[in-house]
Amino acid sequence: MRLKASTHITLKSKTRAAFTAILRPQSGEGQWIVSESYDVRPLIEPREYVDVFGNLVQRFVMPAGQVDVRVEAVVATPDTIATAPEAPYTPPEELPHDVLQFLVPSRYCPSDMMAARAREIAGGARPGYAQVEAIRSWIEHNIEYRRGTSDESTSGLDTLQGGAGVCRDFAHVGISLCRGLLIPARMVVGYLHKLAPPMDQHAWFEAFVGGRWYTFDATQKEPRGGRIVIAYGRDAADVAITTPFGPIEVANMDVAIERID
Amino acid sequence: MRLKASTHITLKSKTRAAFTAILRPQSGEGQWIVSESYDVRPLIEPREYVDVFGNLVQRFVMPAGQVDVRVEAVVATPDTIATAPEAPYTPPEELPHDVLQFLVPSRYCPSDMMAARAREIAGGARPGYAQVEAIRSWIEHNIEYRRGTSDESTSGLDTLQGGAGVCRDFAHVGISLCRGLLIPARMVVGYLHKLAPPMDQHAWFEAFVGGRWYTFDATQKEPRGGRIVIAYGRDAADVAITTPFGPIEVANMDVAIERID
Amino acid sequence: MRLKASTHITLKSKTRAAFTAILRPQSGEGQWIVSESYDVRPLIEPREYVDVFGNLVQRFVMPAGQVDVRVEAVVATPDTIATAPEAPYTPPEELPHDVLQFLVPSRYCPSDMMAARAREIAGGARPGYAQVEAIRSWIEHNIEYRRGTSDESTSGLDTLQGGAGVCRDFAHVGISLCRGLLIPARMVVGYLHKLAPPMDQHAWFEAFVGGRWYTFDATQKEPRGGRIVIAYGRDAADVAITTPFGPIEVANMDVAIERID
Amino acid sequence: MRLKASTHITLKSKTRAAFTAILRPQSGEGQWIVSESYDVRPLIEPREYVDVFGNLVQRFVMPAGQVDVRVEAVVATPDTIATAPEAPYTPPEELPHDVLQFLVPSRYCPSDMMAARAREIAGGARPGYAQVEAIRSWIEHNIEYRRGTSDESTSGLDTLQGGAGVCRDFAHVGISLCRGLLIPARMVVGYLHKLAPPMDQHAWFEAFVGGRWYTFDATQKEPRGGRIVIAYGRDAADVAITTPFGPIEVANMDVAIERID
Repeated sequence: MRLKASTHITLKSKTRAAFTAILRPQSGEGQWIVSESYDVRPLIEPREYVDVFGNLVQRFVMPAGQVDVRVEAVVATPDTIATAPEAPYTPPEELPHDVLQFLVPSRYCPSDMMAARAREIAGGARPGYAQVEAIRSWIEHNIEYRRGTSDESTSGLDTLQGGAGVCRDFAHVGISLCRGLLIPARMVVGYLHKLAPPMDQHAWFEAFVGGRWYTFDATQKEPRGGRIVIAYGRDAADVAITTPFGPIEVANMDVAIERID
Repeated sequence: MRLKASTHITLKSKTRAAFTAILRPQSGEGQWIVSESYDVRPLIEPREYVDVFGNLVQRFVMPAGQVDVRVEAVVATPDTIATAPEAPYTPPEELPHDVLQFLVPSRYCPSDMMAARAREIAGGARPGYAQVEAIRSWIEHNIEYRRGTSDESTSGLDTLQGGAGVCRDFAHVGISLCRGLLIPARMVVGYLHKLAPPMDQHAWFEAFVGGRWYTFDATQKEPRGGRIVIAYGRDAADVAITTPFGPIEVANMDVAIERID
Repeated sequence: MRLKASTHITLKSKTRAAFTAILRPQSGEGQWIVSESYDVRPLIEPREYVDVFGNLVQRFVMPAGQVDVRVEAVVATPDTIATAPEAPYTPPEELPHDVLQFLVPSRYCPSDMMAARAREIAGGARPGYAQVEAIRSWIEHNIEYRRGTSDESTSGLDTLQGGAGVCRDFAHVGISLCRGLLIPARMVVGYLHKLAPPMDQHAWFEAFVGGRWYTFDATQKEPRGGRIVIAYGRDAADVAITTPFGPIEVANMDVAIERID
Repeated sequence: MRLKASTHITLKSKTRAAFTAILRPQSGEGQWIVSESYDVRPLIEPREYVDVFGNLVQRFVMPAGQVDVRVEAVVATPDTIATAPEAPYTPPEELPHDVLQFLVPSRYCPSDMMAARAREIAGGARPGYAQVEAIRSWIEHNIEYRRGTSDESTSGLDTLQGGAGVCRDFAHVGISLCRGLLIPARMVVGYLHKLAPPMDQHAWFEAFVGGRWYTFDATQKEPRGGRIVIAYGRDAADVAITTPFGPIEVANMDVAIERID
């Protein structure tokens, strides 16, 4: 399907200050950027680079005052996501080199402390895709989606213990539990068509089984396509929509997504 | 300035065949992509990757028949290019690691065979920027710009001997002569505002002196900004707008560029 | 000086199992590997790749039984480390692209939770090198070096609160506090000549101020050279000497280092 | 088998001058560096980096006078090379991204000018491995191995026309003809056990068919293992053993290789 997605962020700062943003989706194997605009007003010393995960990162220096960032993209993306209940566990020795980094614990996914819990939840499932689905399903049914229960310091372990969170937290729990079973897992940030309101950017996770990455989303009852990937990372620390270096405040953020074909 | 540039290519093939394209400019240190569209009809298994020079390369597989590729970008780019007549030669031991590759001879820039000529042309100039400018100026005044004198197999050495060529050939001569003086030089393909008609994509070169890359264009009488970079490479072999793998013919190509601010 | 350093690790496993190791120092800007051996007995399907931090990672699959890994390197390395009390803070907008990743919180360096403490400890110092030195010195005088107080799950926050740890923990505290002040900091694992016994591999940290990385070691009273770097990372999660994927046990590990010139 | 290979190069220069070397083999999928030494006397500002082909490149600045570089490596490497007469042609759309660069013409492999000849020589063979073997065999039987017939400016086209050359030229012809058939091909420099005297470093080529790289050597009557790879590149321009930037002369070079198991 073709989706038109947009994000409008208004930033305010009392002083000149730098920030980075990760707001530009890229064409790749799974999605094609048909058109795109990235409008920054005022246009403030913009630069862009590719980070170690392959994400495009935009760097800015804003003056004291207000900056408006409006990003819009039309993207051709699959209607459905691949599922593979039979996909087997990929043993570590068969993982591609660049996948190994998604086995190690990270800031919000302290998988070293969650391995026992992962075995309780998914140990009975067939190694591979079925284990990841068992984890995803467990989160869907056992963690409550509730805004205001978590903040920027909340880890997947905190959420597992607290029992509630938002999409980002659901992803962190899923990633942590997968890594606890030695299944590589990574964070994805992007857009999801028909996400329950209020519309916002969304987070989910991917796990590497059967020799490739598969998409999992514990906030949804069923596998759903209509996704636009903006960024991949170990966890939320790597894929922040904006990272301020100074007294910058996000005064407003609007996200919209619609189907256009 | 803000430039709107577009390229429309029509490809025809008698059989299913793959091709690659390098048509998407990127934001970076020197230019900012405000908006962009990349429309391929029919939309044929598109994929994209970053090559070793940092260029975005689009990969397609076209069916028998016709494919239309329309790329349009609005880009904020400097009105002028930096010049630095005093910039000194950067000795090889001070070159960044990733610049060294632009010292070696390449398909269209057999600099190993042109070092003596380089010393004749620019040996009297002050080492560094002044030598590159001496080379650029020599080409401007001694190589005739004439279509139909060169083809896809013409090297910078051929052009130096033949005395005529087009922008691509001018760049190859410039790059070859620079490398002959141990000055790193690379090919640039992109758009130039107010290029003399007929409008087309353009090629020029950059040389590394005084610790950074500077822009040189032997087809122009004066240093001019209003450039949009699409790709960098060792020579034309690395930065072909389209590379067909099969019986694909470019049936039509239109390029346009205008200032919009 | 020339140092000869060696590590001998004996691994035991009840089943066939994969593991990775990071044991091969590399030549680079600051050290030169004069000679090296990497003997694995039995030699078990070895492979090697470069990770996102530039480290060489060795991958193995061991059979049930025992594997001996003996690594020895003769390395030319500086007698002293650079210090620069006057080096100023490098503002985020001037950081090289690849340094930005060392500002974000990581598994063992939850800097997002330690910024207030960082300001208490180093807020009075001059921004830049002096702040990092204030942090280093504070750790040296306020965290007790004591084995057995920490384990593989201990973060820099845990150590700050607990008041004791080993070299790895000291580095985690230092890195976390630096990042809390928006100073990029990274973990280093390697060898240190004349480390207090028992001899082992060592960990310290680097901070990016004044436009480059500087070495800091809170376990030492004075800046000391005689270091061999094996690996860089965000924290200990990235630079584990060995990472077992299965029931592998480190049965023995001996480290030695001596000066040979 | 385990091979011990060594190269000893003596360089002389009348002035201070920089040079690079590619002399350090790396562990990877196919070979394991058991031990290695890289002795440079005097030890002159050494640095090392990884180039775009993954090769380790050593950078030096020598004083006026003489420098001795002695490199020795013990390497575990396969006794035989893989052959696959049935391996099919890999169509361009199935090539990995990083293989595409080995389809374009390069300094010594002007494949754009040799496609017709490639079809004459190998057009009758089954697409894929058999074509490459047809090319290799044709070179073995039609190009004479003779020292002194080529120099540093000789391309694969020159050798095809001249009918004689050395290992480097044989590889250039093979690579050029493969690319002329849209088969990716790359240059390899390294050691070959039992190479006919006088012992020297050796060059051969690899072609990508059947989804992977295979080794081909037109200087040998039969497929032979016992190889140590030092460097990969598009052609000889990328993999020079030493590249002088200044009045540096190779006063002596000795190469040795022996089996030690």
